Amino acid sequence: MSMKWISVLLLLQLSCYYSPGSSGKVLVWPTEYSHWINMKIILDELVQRGHEVSVLTSSASILVDPSKPSAIKYEIYPTSLTKHDFEVLLRKLFDKWTYLPKDTFWTYFSLLQELLWEYFDCIEKLCKDVVLNKKLITKLQESRFDLLLADAVGPCGESTTLSELMGKAELWLIRTYWDFEFPRPLLPHFEFVGGLHCKPATPLPKEMEEFAQSSGENGIVVFTLGSMISNMTEERANVIASALAQIPQKVIWRFDGKKPETLGPNTRLYKWIPQNDLLGHLKTKAFITHGGTNGIYEAIYHGIPMVGIPFFADQPDNIVHMKTKGAAVRLDFHTMSSTDLLNALKTVINDPSYKENAMKLSRIHRDQPVKPLDRAVFWIEFVMRHKGTKHLRPASHDLTWFQYHSLDVIGFLLACVATAVFVIGKCCLYCCRKFAKTGKKEKRK
Amino acid sequence: MSMKWISVLLLLQLSCYYSPGSSGKVLVWPTEYSHWINMKIILDELVQRGHEVSVLTSSASILVDPSKPSAIKYEIYPTSLTKHDFEVLLRKLFDKWTYLPKDTFWTYFSLLQELLWEYFDCIEKLCKDVVLNKKLITKLQESRFDLLLADAVGPCGESTTLSELMGKAELWLIRTYWDFEFPRPLLPHFEFVGGLHCKPATPLPKEMEEFAQSSGENGIVVFTLGSMISNMTEERANVIASALAQIPQKVIWRFDGKKPETLGPNTRLYKWIPQNDLLGHLKTKAFITHGGTNGIYEAIYHGIPMVGIPFFADQPDNIVHMKTKGAAVRLDFHTMSSTDLLNALKTVINDPSYKENAMKLSRIHRDQPVKPLDRAVFWIEFVMRHKGTKHLRPASHDLTWFQYHSLDVIGFLLACVATAVFVIGKCCLYCCRKFAKTGKKEKRK
Repeated sequence: MSMKWISVLLLLQLSCYYSPGSSGKVLVWPTEYSHWINMKIILDELVQRGHEVSVLTSSASILVDPSKPSAIKYEIYPTSLTKHDFEVLLRKLFDKWTYLPKDTFWTYFSLLQELLWEYFDCIEKLCKDVVLNKKLITKLQESRFDLLLADAVGPCGESTTLSELMGKAELWLIRTYWDFEFPRPLLPHFEFVGGLHCKPATPLPKEMEEFAQSSGENGIVVFTLGSMISNMTEERANVIASALAQIPQKVIWRFDGKKPETLGPNTRLYKWIPQNDLLGHLKTKAFITHGGTNGIYEAIYHGIPMVGIPFFADQPDNIVHMKTKGAAVRLDFHTMSSTDLLNALKTVINDPSYKENAMKLSRIHRDQPVKPLDRAVFWIEFVMRHKGTKHLRPASHDLTWFQYHSLDVIGFLLACVATAVFVIGKCCLYCCRKFAKTGKKEKRK
Repeated sequence: MSMKWISVLLLLQLSCYYSPGSSGKVLVWPTEYSHWINMKIILDELVQRGHEVSVLTSSASILVDPSKPSAIKYEIYPTSLTKHDFEVLLRKLFDKWTYLPKDTFWTYFSLLQELLWEYFDCIEKLCKDVVLNKKLITKLQESRFDLLLADAVGPCGESTTLSELMGKAELWLIRTYWDFEFPRPLLPHFEFVGGLHCKPATPLPKEMEEFAQSSGENGIVVFTLGSMISNMTEERANVIASALAQIPQKVIWRFDGKKPETLGPNTRLYKWIPQNDLLGHLKTKAFITHGGTNGIYEAIYHGIPMVGIPFFADQPDNIVHMKTKGAAVRLDFHTMSSTDLLNALKTVINDPSYKENAMKLSRIHRDQPVKPLDRAVFWIEFVMRHKGTKHLRPASHDLTWFQYHSLDVIGFLLACVATAVFVIGKCCLYCCRKFAKTGKKEKRK
């Protein structure tokens, strides 16, 4: 790995590479947390369509759990890292990122670069544990897979650069769609399959349903900051709780910590919530979210306006998208007061434009000629059927960086101009001298 | 109309504009020949899905025939041009374009520009006949259409520029696909629906089928230069006929002229041929074509290698695409000899790579998640359902040309630099003078 690049993390999240062999054998290189939750849905669908899916993962893997009964095969490679070490390392990283000082552009990005180096060092370690494991590599080669489905957020390659690795991808599956993205040019081997995990709500657990119904016409607010935020201070928890206590809605808050003192009777804490079922519930008026892609897509799918409290990675960017589309209000976790949160909630619930915009996004999302999951699986199968997507890949991948920027052409043209200037200059100089000499001679005569 | 621009003609061919009103009422602004043939297929499908389709066309229209029984409504506007005049004008234009001297880049393009001006003068005349017809415009306004489906090859607008008119399009339906195109970035409101007219072959007329079967293992060659080429010289016809006479295949040639003297017994002339059924016939080995988009797509659909003899407009470009993809050999109609045509035919029939590449394009074309016609209709209906595609339109449409090229930003920065240079220069000058004065004074002392 010679490059460490943030946009891989933010934009390019799943990719299919082709590897020759017989049809229907898929090797998967996953990453953790929400990325795995998303990818697992594609893998389950592939298995259901009769493909053989093998997931290559380390013995330290956090969410990829081979013990759960599934038709997916797991190829576990040993690593000196333990599951606990890996989890602590990632959580520390996310916590640091969350509290990164934003004083100046340069401090922020130099500290962020250090953080990402820490992350990529870890990814590189895991990658080395695969590529230097000769027995494993031989086994994988002998398995003759048809396709490698790799999550580009944790890239790995046999002495290559990240840019070369990315150029080899036959197809990019992007975890967003035009309900979320701003319109811009894209290459034809990019397929936007955001929201592939979205589905209609199923009934809530009885206790939760009764609590939701007890809200009457005011409805409920769903609140979760994802599974990554573990160390909220008591002060922050109380600021949030006191704001929630002041709204007429009932609040379902996913919170795994000490019960805040200011918690109102309208708010219930849960260690886990059925997020999609809650967002699809008729009583739901607003969603307070950290802005992870999966949660945002569930809110888009069900047309729920959001209050975004982003922490790290693509979360701030995601919330900016939703804010620009008029479906969210953004708050800063570290500096927001109870009043800020209260006002934000009042705005997204009482100003009808937020609900309208969220519903508009929902309608756009649901009105596609083919559903995102079906498109994702179609293109994975397409790559296997046609042994790649050569007809979709731009020729720019085969250019060196100086060809790509036309530096060879510009260089040649500059050399031509320089030669012409030099020759003309020399000629002029020669003529002038000759003329001067002739003048002198004539003067002497 | 203030701009006359060739790329409209070549690239941007069908577009949907939104106009507010009740759902399912479509107004169509068509153009002639192959464009109309293509668009008619979309209109028939729209009618079948229950939409009300009204075609706005002049009394001089060539192919748009209101007398044929159809569920499509026709709104005929009067024009001083007769159908005969219009046909003669277009045919003359195409003939001139075909024989345009290609001596130098500049002569070719200045003559081409003159030609296109002639064409756009004609289109402008027809457009004026609509927009200055107050009774018609009032009737159209009162009809409250939901959508205008306009062929951008003959643009028309109520005092506007072509660029403004194009910027208003909610969606562009492009008559090609990635089997034909070279991969390049595209905007999300471009939908590539090339080959929407393609369908499986139906049986040939009895006489033609018997002729095809009589070819045995050698098979047949299908030959048509489209309906536009009317004045082939006897010399050219004989060059072609004598080449065809030398191949072991039987040839079905669409030809409406004097029978060439060198015509071989293996070649039959027809005033009209069922092109799609012939290209889908099991005996067909090659297709000699002028390179019109519709014919090329039928060849792609059925996987038939081509010999391209392009004449004008996008035909040379189309053949270059097929040649680059390894499915065609290109010839020049004016300079080719019998041997050239013979060799070209032998190459595409006997070199297996041409058939393989044509089949590869066919497989790519047929393997789409949604068929091109269904996609075209889906997006037309989408524009009506959602009253536009605001979420797909790039913000660049709302910028002026100097904003688009960041000239305002560059100008401001340059002004800042100029001011800074001026101020610093003045300061230096002031300091120097002061220093000089002090120096003099001290010297005097």
